[in-house]
Amino acid sequence: MPLVKLIEYADSGPEVRAVYDDIMHTRGVDWINNFWKALANDPATLRRIWENVKQVMAPGALDPLVKEMIYVAVSATNNCEYCSHSHTAAARNKGMNDAMLMELMAVVGLANETNRLANGLRIPVDTEFIPKF
Amino acid sequence: MPLVKLIEYADSGPEVRAVYDDIMHTRGVDWINNFWKALANDPATLRRIWENVKQVMAPGALDPLVKEMIYVAVSATNNCEYCSHSHTAAARNKGMNDAMLMELMAVVGLANETNRLANGLRIPVDTEFIPKF
Amino acid sequence: MPLVKLIEYADSGPEVRAVYDDIMHTRGVDWINNFWKALANDPATLRRIWENVKQVMAPGALDPLVKEMIYVAVSATNNCEYCSHSHTAAARNKGMNDAMLMELMAVVGLANETNRLANGLRIPVDTEFIPKF
Amino acid sequence: MPLVKLIEYADSGPEVRAVYDDIMHTRGVDWINNFWKALANDPATLRRIWENVKQVMAPGALDPLVKEMIYVAVSATNNCEYCSHSHTAAARNKGMNDAMLMELMAVVGLANETNRLANGLRIPVDTEFIPKF
Amino acid sequence: MPLVKLIEYADSGPEVRAVYDDIMHTRGVDWINNFWKALANDPATLRRIWENVKQVMAPGALDPLVKEMIYVAVSATNNCEYCSHSHTAAARNKGMNDAMLMELMAVVGLANETNRLANGLRIPVDTEFIPKF
Amino acid sequence: MPLVKLIEYADSGPEVRAVYDDIMHTRGVDWINNFWKALANDPATLRRIWENVKQVMAPGALDPLVKEMIYVAVSATNNCEYCSHSHTAAARNKGMNDAMLMELMAVVGLANETNRLANGLRIPVDTEFIPKF
Repeated sequence: MPLVKLIEYADSGPEVRAVYDDIMHTRGVDWINNFWKALANDPATLRRIWENVKQVMAPGALDPLVKEMIYVAVSATNNCEYCSHSHTAAARNKGMNDAMLMELMAVVGLANETNRLANGLRIPVDTEFIPKF
Repeated sequence: MPLVKLIEYADSGPEVRAVYDDIMHTRGVDWINNFWKALANDPATLRRIWENVKQVMAPGALDPLVKEMIYVAVSATNNCEYCSHSHTAAARNKGMNDAMLMELMAVVGLANETNRLANGLRIPVDTEFIPKF
Repeated sequence: MPLVKLIEYADSGPEVRAVYDDIMHTRGVDWINNFWKALANDPATLRRIWENVKQVMAPGALDPLVKEMIYVAVSATNNCEYCSHSHTAAARNKGMNDAMLMELMAVVGLANETNRLANGLRIPVDTEFIPKF
Repeated sequence: MPLVKLIEYADSGPEVRAVYDDIMHTRGVDWINNFWKALANDPATLRRIWENVKQVMAPGALDPLVKEMIYVAVSATNNCEYCSHSHTAAARNKGMNDAMLMELMAVVGLANETNRLANGLRIPVDTEFIPKF
Repeated sequence: MPLVKLIEYADSGPEVRAVYDDIMHTRGVDWINNFWKALANDPATLRRIWENVKQVMAPGALDPLVKEMIYVAVSATNNCEYCSHSHTAAARNKGMNDAMLMELMAVVGLANETNRLANGLRIPVDTEFIPKF
Repeated sequence: MPLVKLIEYADSGPEVRAVYDDIMHTRGVDWINNFWKALANDPATLRRIWENVKQVMAPGALDPLVKEMIYVAVSATNNCEYCSHSHTAAARNKGMNDAMLMELMAVVGLANETNRLANGLRIPVDTEFIPKF
């Protein structure tokens, strides 16, 4: 159960509705997912986060599918149930298949393992890895 | 300062040396980084982790650069200094430039933000995201 | 489903009952929440944690509502479902409204984002921030 | 050592310089801290994150000192050395003294403890805590 | 709901079935738990993780019950619901009773608390703790 | 650099000195480590945390070395440099050798890996693992 009301389109004011319309138009869908309905309790936060998502997830130096897979990797590491579901669905829509998801998870698992070996044993960074500027 | 000795090639026994040789040969380098020198305190662990890294990071459904960037994303999320340095260096070797690193970090930052918004507000997963099998 | 039995008041021994009575009296409520019923499997732990909560959450240099909001911020960051619910309810009882909760979450989200940007890029601390003693 | 160059004011282009000027003007300071110098490797990210910080940390339903203390609480929980230093310095500038910092840390510590007791024992949320909408 | 299909024994190919048989034989049980059914979507990952678990959790310098309790401690810290259930069950099978579980959780809680006090206050490591090699 | 002054024995008041004396006496050492010198900025917190440590780490259902190793496991998972050093030193004092430390780290690494596989794939808990009360 959420800690704030989920604001439906029909119950939203003009500020929220403008963002909802932009989300649906940008994504080519006809529904709003719960994440935005929760943020709509503060229209300024709703707009701010949506503008961030649009800017960060747009094609750029990395392609959108790679970005979605990075999102899935972080969400798995942080144990965000909502985000694992929503971004795995988004990555599948952009072309991720089961084999790619399983390999992604294998990397995430291994990285979480070796992160703790390095941190737990306090292994010093090799000077060879330090970038020279 | 590390919590165990770093085992140099010259001081290593045959089990460790065999893994060190395989690391250098597989990677086409002539030195061993500290991570492996720390694991070498337990030769079975050294071999096990190296075999895992070889299997998981090999080309497959995902290309090796994407895998390195996922590794960097997890290491940033977990705050592993050693791994951020070593895997950012590896990703640069495989073609990641500054623009790609900055975009990668932008996705990592945003995912960490929205993960907490979703978790902190206990937003329920939309049924539309649940996979049907 | 919990990993230990939840100890009801009616089934509790005198050590547990004394803590339960103090919780209800201190908080002015007539029921015990599940957190304490789980800890009651070890009466010494039940008493110890309750005494810690009483001491730490009492008014002091910070007011109790600020303390509850800090608790909510940590619980969102760590993804503790139980604690998000119980401490958000407590903060609402002490005066937090929806606008405050949404701003609190906005800060939590942003901090989680910039924490990873700073950690992931290994940004060195400016000497200007180092306290002089 | 940072993983990207730190961009000094003298070496920055007009987009970066405009943000740097706004940071110094908004904060009433005459220097730029390393966090922004690292983000300046991607001027769009620099502007985006700065606009987020300005919006989120402005006075609103919560006062700025409370927001800084929440930032410190999250940074301690995530172990962000850079952010602990920069936001503790900011909180001190806004009036946090040693007694307040120690109480803040006491709450952070306790929340991290009870978060794990609740998660580790999988304690079910009491229906009394579920908000009714 | 899982993000991949759970592969039942009856529906599995020879590679998966060989691992399932080894799991049941090694553990002396006649069923496969969901963790392996999910990994079976990538038979190479299934085999790799199972071989790791067999090697790491075998009796060695630490006894198997201590290893299970360490697994429970990490799972509580990371908030892994699946792992808390499966490894608490495994630890109980190896002799952990309620008193031991409660003490284990007390240590986990305290460590999570003092970790944040040390990190949040950036307390420098005493030279007395640095190992001499 | 710490965010608060480290309070030396010679500069401490009677409340702090009483705790310092108890720490040295209980542990049979003649010096105070930095953790306590930082907490001494709030004598009530210093006493509270010390009393918690004494109670939780005392011999009980688990032996003190197992408790120290659990502390090391949590500290590695959370990346607490201070705690990794101090509790690894404490565990060595109680009998942990290099082989035990390496096995401990192997379990910590593996648990961190499988925690993310289970969380990232949202694997449902088997009913066989649910305790019956």
